[in-house]
Amino acid sequence: MPKKKYRILGIDTSLRSSGIGVIEVNGSNLSLIFCGRIYNRSTETHSVCLKNIYNDLTDCIKKYNPGFVAVEGTFFSKNAKTAMILGQARGAAISACAQFDIPIAEHSPRTIKQAVTGNGSSQKDQVAKMVMRLLGINEQPQEDAADALAIAICHYHQLSLPESLRSPNI
Amino acid sequence: MPKKKYRILGIDTSLRSSGIGVIEVNGSNLSLIFCGRIYNRSTETHSVCLKNIYNDLTDCIKKYNPGFVAVEGTFFSKNAKTAMILGQARGAAISACAQFDIPIAEHSPRTIKQAVTGNGSSQKDQVAKMVMRLLGINEQPQEDAADALAIAICHYHQLSLPESLRSPNI
Repeated sequence: MPKKKYRILGIDTSLRSSGIGVIEVNGSNLSLIFCGRIYNRSTETHSVCLKNIYNDLTDCIKKYNPGFVAVEGTFFSKNAKTAMILGQARGAAISACAQFDIPIAEHSPRTIKQAVTGNGSSQKDQVAKMVMRLLGINEQPQEDAADALAIAICHYHQLSLPESLRSPNI
Repeated sequence: MPKKKYRILGIDTSLRSSGIGVIEVNGSNLSLIFCGRIYNRSTETHSVCLKNIYNDLTDCIKKYNPGFVAVEGTFFSKNAKTAMILGQARGAAISACAQFDIPIAEHSPRTIKQAVTGNGSSQKDQVAKMVMRLLGINEQPQEDAADALAIAICHYHQLSLPESLRSPNI
């Protein structure tokens, strides 16, 4: 187990709208530090979107100083073109986080839903509602930001498992 | 047409061995400035590989100051898992280049072969031999480095076309 008080950055990566969420863990208490999204207009070139993802995450890490990063595992069922575009967004995000030598893990969509709601097949809205309850917040976060917070909460659960049972770092 | 003397960085991206090649264009004369590869051992995590790609390309651009960057267009026929991994490597590479606000273009494998050898279906070794001839070098570069030089040479050809006929920037 990591030290008593630490922060986790969850990232729900996509080219046009990546969710980011930072939670603080203090013993068994979870609280919201920041959530938002990296929005790229549809008129921006891919290279500008990737630069923005890299730079915004760099700023976020400098500002909130997380001890762990977690991203959503990839959907291998998607087609190759979609996978390539999502992969590029992930590459920009992961290379930004890797500059800080913070451990980076990935969790499958099912593991994330299971950790937050107890059900690996739950709907987006149920996940968002549970995120609000677990973090004690009253206003529902924007959809991608809520997903990012769910990823961070999932990682908190993972850290309470024996190391051999956790998702490996990437 | 760009100014008379300028440099082009070609990148043949992959997670474990990305080729990089810088050529200088002086009128219609092409010369080799640098070629090599970013090698990541199979024991490295993906996040370390992506960090290395980002950092090595950043160093390369600072050192050689290219005015243009070109990458190989993606193979959409590959399966989704392969596309995702290649996409991540591209995302790290493109976000590094985008920090310098250099125009970044991509060219299909067929366009690259066509530009270098006159035949869009030519073999790797024919491409490498033609790269050597066009750049006036005696020693055959490592395979990924030769591919990167071919991409840079292809971009030189593209720049001689009217803007409406060039591959768009990404």
